[in-house]
Amino acid sequence: MANRILVLHGPNMNLLGDRDTVLYGFETIEEVNSSISAAAADLGVETMIEQRNSEGELIDLIHHHCTGDLSSPGKVQGLIINPAAYSHYSYAIRDALEVLTIPVVEVHMTNVVSRKDNFRHNLVTASVSKAVISGFGADSYILALSGMSKLLSST
Amino acid sequence: MANRILVLHGPNMNLLGDRDTVLYGFETIEEVNSSISAAAADLGVETMIEQRNSEGELIDLIHHHCTGDLSSPGKVQGLIINPAAYSHYSYAIRDALEVLTIPVVEVHMTNVVSRKDNFRHNLVTASVSKAVISGFGADSYILALSGMSKLLSST
Amino acid sequence: MANRILVLHGPNMNLLGDRDTVLYGFETIEEVNSSISAAAADLGVETMIEQRNSEGELIDLIHHHCTGDLSSPGKVQGLIINPAAYSHYSYAIRDALEVLTIPVVEVHMTNVVSRKDNFRHNLVTASVSKAVISGFGADSYILALSGMSKLLSST
Amino acid sequence: MANRILVLHGPNMNLLGDRDTVLYGFETIEEVNSSISAAAADLGVETMIEQRNSEGELIDLIHHHCTGDLSSPGKVQGLIINPAAYSHYSYAIRDALEVLTIPVVEVHMTNVVSRKDNFRHNLVTASVSKAVISGFGADSYILALSGMSKLLSST
Amino acid sequence: MANRILVLHGPNMNLLGDRDTVLYGFETIEEVNSSISAAAADLGVETMIEQRNSEGELIDLIHHHCTGDLSSPGKVQGLIINPAAYSHYSYAIRDALEVLTIPVVEVHMTNVVSRKDNFRHNLVTASVSKAVISGFGADSYILALSGMSKLLSST
Amino acid sequence: MANRILVLHGPNMNLLGDRDTVLYGFETIEEVNSSISAAAADLGVETMIEQRNSEGELIDLIHHHCTGDLSSPGKVQGLIINPAAYSHYSYAIRDALEVLTIPVVEVHMTNVVSRKDNFRHNLVTASVSKAVISGFGADSYILALSGMSKLLSST
Amino acid sequence: MANRILVLHGPNMNLLGDRDTVLYGFETIEEVNSSISAAAADLGVETMIEQRNSEGELIDLIHHHCTGDLSSPGKVQGLIINPAAYSHYSYAIRDALEVLTIPVVEVHMTNVVSRKDNFRHNLVTASVSKAVISGFGADSYILALSGMSKLLSST
Amino acid sequence: MANRILVLHGPNMNLLGDRDTVLYGFETIEEVNSSISAAAADLGVETMIEQRNSEGELIDLIHHHCTGDLSSPGKVQGLIINPAAYSHYSYAIRDALEVLTIPVVEVHMTNVVSRKDNFRHNLVTASVSKAVISGFGADSYILALSGMSKLLSST
Amino acid sequence: MANRILVLHGPNMNLLGDRDTVLYGFETIEEVNSSISAAAADLGVETMIEQRNSEGELIDLIHHHCTGDLSSPGKVQGLIINPAAYSHYSYAIRDALEVLTIPVVEVHMTNVVSRKDNFRHNLVTASVSKAVISGFGADSYILALSGMSKLLSST
Amino acid sequence: MANRILVLHGPNMNLLGDRDTVLYGFETIEEVNSSISAAAADLGVETMIEQRNSEGELIDLIHHHCTGDLSSPGKVQGLIINPAAYSHYSYAIRDALEVLTIPVVEVHMTNVVSRKDNFRHNLVTASVSKAVISGFGADSYILALSGMSKLLSST
Amino acid sequence: MANRILVLHGPNMNLLGDRDTVLYGFETIEEVNSSISAAAADLGVETMIEQRNSEGELIDLIHHHCTGDLSSPGKVQGLIINPAAYSHYSYAIRDALEVLTIPVVEVHMTNVVSRKDNFRHNLVTASVSKAVISGFGADSYILALSGMSKLLSST
Amino acid sequence: MANRILVLHGPNMNLLGDRDTVLYGFETIEEVNSSISAAAADLGVETMIEQRNSEGELIDLIHHHCTGDLSSPGKVQGLIINPAAYSHYSYAIRDALEVLTIPVVEVHMTNVVSRKDNFRHNLVTASVSKAVISGFGADSYILALSGMSKLLSST
Repeated sequence: MANRILVLHGPNMNLLGDRDTVLYGFETIEEVNSSISAAAADLGVETMIEQRNSEGELIDLIHHHCTGDLSSPGKVQGLIINPAAYSHYSYAIRDALEVLTIPVVEVHMTNVVSRKDNFRHNLVTASVSKAVISGFGADSYILALSGMSKLLSST
Repeated sequence: MANRILVLHGPNMNLLGDRDTVLYGFETIEEVNSSISAAAADLGVETMIEQRNSEGELIDLIHHHCTGDLSSPGKVQGLIINPAAYSHYSYAIRDALEVLTIPVVEVHMTNVVSRKDNFRHNLVTASVSKAVISGFGADSYILALSGMSKLLSST
Repeated sequence: MANRILVLHGPNMNLLGDRDTVLYGFETIEEVNSSISAAAADLGVETMIEQRNSEGELIDLIHHHCTGDLSSPGKVQGLIINPAAYSHYSYAIRDALEVLTIPVVEVHMTNVVSRKDNFRHNLVTASVSKAVISGFGADSYILALSGMSKLLSST
Repeated sequence: MANRILVLHGPNMNLLGDRDTVLYGFETIEEVNSSISAAAADLGVETMIEQRNSEGELIDLIHHHCTGDLSSPGKVQGLIINPAAYSHYSYAIRDALEVLTIPVVEVHMTNVVSRKDNFRHNLVTASVSKAVISGFGADSYILALSGMSKLLSST
Repeated sequence: MANRILVLHGPNMNLLGDRDTVLYGFETIEEVNSSISAAAADLGVETMIEQRNSEGELIDLIHHHCTGDLSSPGKVQGLIINPAAYSHYSYAIRDALEVLTIPVVEVHMTNVVSRKDNFRHNLVTASVSKAVISGFGADSYILALSGMSKLLSST
Repeated sequence: MANRILVLHGPNMNLLGDRDTVLYGFETIEEVNSSISAAAADLGVETMIEQRNSEGELIDLIHHHCTGDLSSPGKVQGLIINPAAYSHYSYAIRDALEVLTIPVVEVHMTNVVSRKDNFRHNLVTASVSKAVISGFGADSYILALSGMSKLLSST
Repeated sequence: MANRILVLHGPNMNLLGDRDTVLYGFETIEEVNSSISAAAADLGVETMIEQRNSEGELIDLIHHHCTGDLSSPGKVQGLIINPAAYSHYSYAIRDALEVLTIPVVEVHMTNVVSRKDNFRHNLVTASVSKAVISGFGADSYILALSGMSKLLSST
Repeated sequence: MANRILVLHGPNMNLLGDRDTVLYGFETIEEVNSSISAAAADLGVETMIEQRNSEGELIDLIHHHCTGDLSSPGKVQGLIINPAAYSHYSYAIRDALEVLTIPVVEVHMTNVVSRKDNFRHNLVTASVSKAVISGFGADSYILALSGMSKLLSST
Repeated sequence: MANRILVLHGPNMNLLGDRDTVLYGFETIEEVNSSISAAAADLGVETMIEQRNSEGELIDLIHHHCTGDLSSPGKVQGLIINPAAYSHYSYAIRDALEVLTIPVVEVHMTNVVSRKDNFRHNLVTASVSKAVISGFGADSYILALSGMSKLLSST
Repeated sequence: MANRILVLHGPNMNLLGDRDTVLYGFETIEEVNSSISAAAADLGVETMIEQRNSEGELIDLIHHHCTGDLSSPGKVQGLIINPAAYSHYSYAIRDALEVLTIPVVEVHMTNVVSRKDNFRHNLVTASVSKAVISGFGADSYILALSGMSKLLSST
Repeated sequence: MANRILVLHGPNMNLLGDRDTVLYGFETIEEVNSSISAAAADLGVETMIEQRNSEGELIDLIHHHCTGDLSSPGKVQGLIINPAAYSHYSYAIRDALEVLTIPVVEVHMTNVVSRKDNFRHNLVTASVSKAVISGFGADSYILALSGMSKLLSST
Repeated sequence: MANRILVLHGPNMNLLGDRDTVLYGFETIEEVNSSISAAAADLGVETMIEQRNSEGELIDLIHHHCTGDLSSPGKVQGLIINPAAYSHYSYAIRDALEVLTIPVVEVHMTNVVSRKDNFRHNLVTASVSKAVISGFGADSYILALSGMSKLLSST
């Protein structure tokens, strides 16, 4: 049976295309999600894709999809998350990720450590992720899917 | 046509009048909002006023009212925001404000840099605002409305 | 009339039993809540117990139950809160607690200052609580109830 | 009798119009002062306006105008001050302001906390002011006058 | 056979009743000790209670009572310690506690993290304790005894 | 004509397979390099792969292959670099990377921000890279090649 | 009746004359004490002079002489203390001093803030003293006696 | 011939009696100066007393009176200075004091290290003074005169 | 027409020859100024040389000579400044320099970053200068003149 | 005549063999002391060996044995000290060591800079020692004796 | 006999002309070296000029040319060094420079303290140099040669 | 068969005898190496001794001699290293040492924590060594050999 992957976009990611186009490009979130779904089909995995601005709702989604018991059909085999601004201060999301037994790949469209704001150099959630990909724009998600497949097949 | 201004109150501002009355005075949030509406009428601008305790809902409101495309009738011409405690750590609200093309005026009823708690001296959201007014109690909002009018007429 | 106590569990506490069992033991949140209710009955106090992952909803609950006016029958006489990860950065919850006139007891199942992550040594919400109990596992709540009874009877 | 307000410009403010015109606009200090006087007339208050580059002379002016005994006719009822660079390190001006019993409003033409230089985020004098307005260009002074009027009428 | 518990009071605790009565109440150390003994009797445990101003003597007492070999009749089954000021800088007491195999509960009469002095927020000895109770006044000791009983019965 | 990519391994990477096998796995550097070459063939790009322990020699290689003038046949179109320990303090390599006009992708086999050593959280060279991939073991290189292809085809 | 003053010398002060003679001069502690007694006689006050190397014994002496109840004939009217190295880290002595209701004057023979060691610039016990004198060598004690007399006569 | 001593008061000291009377008492600067002169007469020394708000003028006075060549009749034999706020940041006054060959005694009316503002704990000018006296109110000057006499007679 | 250069000496530089002769040599400021004038004559430039102890007066001089409008005959073509102690904390002088459109060369007689005082390693004014020369004693000024000539001829 | 060496063990060293046996091994302090005595005999030096938990008593011992006048027969020729936890914060022991004219060798059984606790990386007493040996377990003392012999024979 | 001067260029300086041309200009290193040689000829000194990317090779060159014994004909009389990025972290080069008895002049083409990267404000090697020149582009070397001549002629 | 030990000297150690003779004595590196070889002969161990200024070459030597597979005849049984300046910042050497399975003893001729430069108090490589010896001059190496013998015989 195909692996299922949850893809979570954090706060303000719904503005893609409107937001700083120099940093993020002109693709909207719908276009990015279509690319993700297409790439997933190529890799033979299923994806569920969600975006939330609320820290609490992101945690709810992680709990709902990623931490259920093993017999439950709704559970996913991997989590790809772009926590956006929450990457830098949400210890609550960090705690939610830390207890997961499935692999977590953190994604950023920009290379956050090269951004000028100091707060973006503090990577709170990445400290409990398995792997991190940043700086390839929307392709960061595509590479994360590919990397997740490798992680899942190597276990 | 009259300019429309969104006025956003952050967490715990619904407790005005109950909260520390030495710092914030005895006016309830309803009374403050009435004063804002009256002052707006004098200035010939329309105001929408909202209060939320949730960081995510504040971001949703900013997205909904302030970042729509230009033809949309619901869009406002300016944002006046008192992020309250979120002023000091919400990088997610900061990112929501940073992408706005309309002017943002941050408001505080107290002069936060004179408060005794060190965390209140770190102004995360103000670093991406156009202007800041603090320390006039409920009149901070009235002055912000007046300042916003000047900003809107000077563009 | 019996004192009523609000018991609030913060983010990820719904995962008890699933989460790190070395640190938190095998009891689920339902089992912990049953122990709390039983102990409350022994002490002759009523408890309302809630868990939320959202910072904003925790603030809403605090406002709803703890800050109403004195004549209101829904008000509680004490708050026991385990803010979990929010303990370390939520200035918004801190502000909500600071205005309360009823006693607040902060609870942690583990001794947070002995945890290896530096961020857990910064106690933001505890700085406005009346008292703190940590490190007794689920019994931290039971001791908090007992301590709250002493605080309420000594006023 | 009309309230009298002292308006103090700190170091380098005499260069307005020459200084960074992107940040400060093209108005000279004479033009800014004329606007202040006109706005004061509208509000029915008198203003005295001075500019000094010297920390010591700014303190002398504050002493001379703001700390005399109550019967003295030269005393002002409020102080509006833009300490410019001294805002960030002059503990001597801070001490001069701290002893005043009349309200002090600190003004900045730019939103200093959004400036790139870290030293501008340290607000030494503002920590003893009643209120702060920043980011409205020359209109910061006009709004400060208006705010001062509100402060003086509310006492 | 009844469990024996060593209760250690750190420096200046002999001044209880004389010391800051707003923070610590009017009970003398003799009265606090009587309450502890009474509560111990209720719980069916024996207590030995000591107070020392000297760091070295506190370490001597810990060694003497808590680290003897298992056959020794003088050994206690638990340690309740209020290291007072030493909580914040005594790495020597910390090292003495770290080697213990019996549970250690640290007690503070006030909620130290809410005290205004920064040095009180650095919890050196608590970082090697099993659990911490603070903020209930003299009842902190009573709750610690109760918690110790739970810890001892759960092993 | 096929794109050519320089792959640079930093200090101690020659020990792969000998080094901490929990963190880095059992593959030797020769096996990792074979995988890289195979993946490159699949992607239709050529790779040159070098390892050096010396900071100066790494800079020499970067200069030799990556900064020649456009007509030079030896020049590569992209650089994939794992600076290993130099990631965290080599401002000289950082300066060598900063002047490049070809894309640079930094690679780490482990997720460095989750490592326990604080020095590994300071990412000096990554701050001037286009993109970063970490945490996939030897597959980090394969994903970097894939990402580099995307970067080169999107320009 | 003559005022009685306790003079306390901290650790290593017994070595005066042996210790760094450039900093402390050639007088032994007995000679310094004689000068103090002579000066006290001139001022009409009685002195008790003690030296201890132990932090705990210094606290015991402070408790014994300075915190007894008002009717007790052994109590002193003022404390002059040179805590030596303990000045810089003994929060326990600090707490002992803080509760005193008699004036405390801290004395140093050298001007500690001009000493090259950074730890000597952190003045822990002085932060709860009434006054501080440093840098006059053994005359620092004489001036402290004179200052204490002024403090005692002005109350 | 009698020793001559320059007594310098720093910024805002002219407000004595008006300034915070809890901290500084009700004496005006004229009254303080009279006490200084009277005490000087008792000690058989001459004093020149000046107050300046300007850092540059304080330096000018130090140069004029304290650094002339030995034959010049205007030179003083000692400097007593209360740099007030400049104590905490004036490296220029510090450099002026550092070159002096006559003794410098720094004076503060309050015990600055016990003041609540952190900036007052940084003692820039005191680090190049011979001695420091603080916390005796106006008597700090009298004790400084006495101490200066001892310093001058011991050379 | 010959270029005119303003040479400004900061606080305490009038003491040259008196000040620390190990660091600064035995030349008086008059001798240094003569050397500067002679070297200027060799280079075919005119110099105006001023020394001030007051921060405000240094700013006044910079404004007067360096920021006038282009037609004014008093304007200079370059500024050589040794801000002495103000180099390390005067944000007001920094702001005065930042707006200049003529080149500014900062000069120090000693190599300030090799001085033992940490405060001398913080270079506030140099951060807005074009170039810096330090460590050549009085020759630092001569080299600065030479460097200024190169800067002026290269534009 | 044989050189005499004082060997001082600091707090908690009496627990050797009971304490963390992974770090410290299974030897008791008596066994370690026997090894030291045997090695001393081989080197032809006499040793006195003491252990104290009290900072003050350690200082007393240092004074008694190491700082007497030259004719006194009780004086030792060298001090070997393992200050244990006091290594990291006892400025009083540091001051006691600093005045010694005999060589001091600091010893640690573990390599303290490789220990996980940050406080163990701050070496307060070692900063005034002649030499330091750490990490060889009980053999650290034996090597220190050997090193002390070399130091004593080279003077 | 003519003085001989070693001129050392640090890492990446071989890229001059290719590197950031806004900061460094269009001259290649060969052109810069020709200017240096020409200026040296004018001053009557000989120069040896070398560039290395390797820290170790720079140290080798310093040892080879600058620290030989006095009779050796290969020794130089002065060192001009632009350590480039190594300026900010190479304690090994710092140690190599510190032992030299010939004068060292550090050179930077840009004014490093005005660069935006914080790491460039930490001047490790300059702290042991005699003098520093920065900000004149390639002319920094010419001025350094001139300054070196003055230093050599003044000894 | 005799144990073989690699002795590595870091940067600038080739200058021994030339370098600061107060700190390091007058012995040249050849003389130090002879003493090491002689002592090794006494202990019955073989030594290979190398000195390098280059970080990369030091790593190469560590790899070549210390990390080969067990059957290889070139491997040593222990490493004694004086990383000199690299001790304080070379994370690359640290990583090379960390993977070794043979014991590593770090040696310093001076007691580095007593040196005045702050950078020498940061011990990067020592944090992964087994043991450290410092402060005995050239005898530090002799004691390290002796300690290494003990370490090798105790395994």
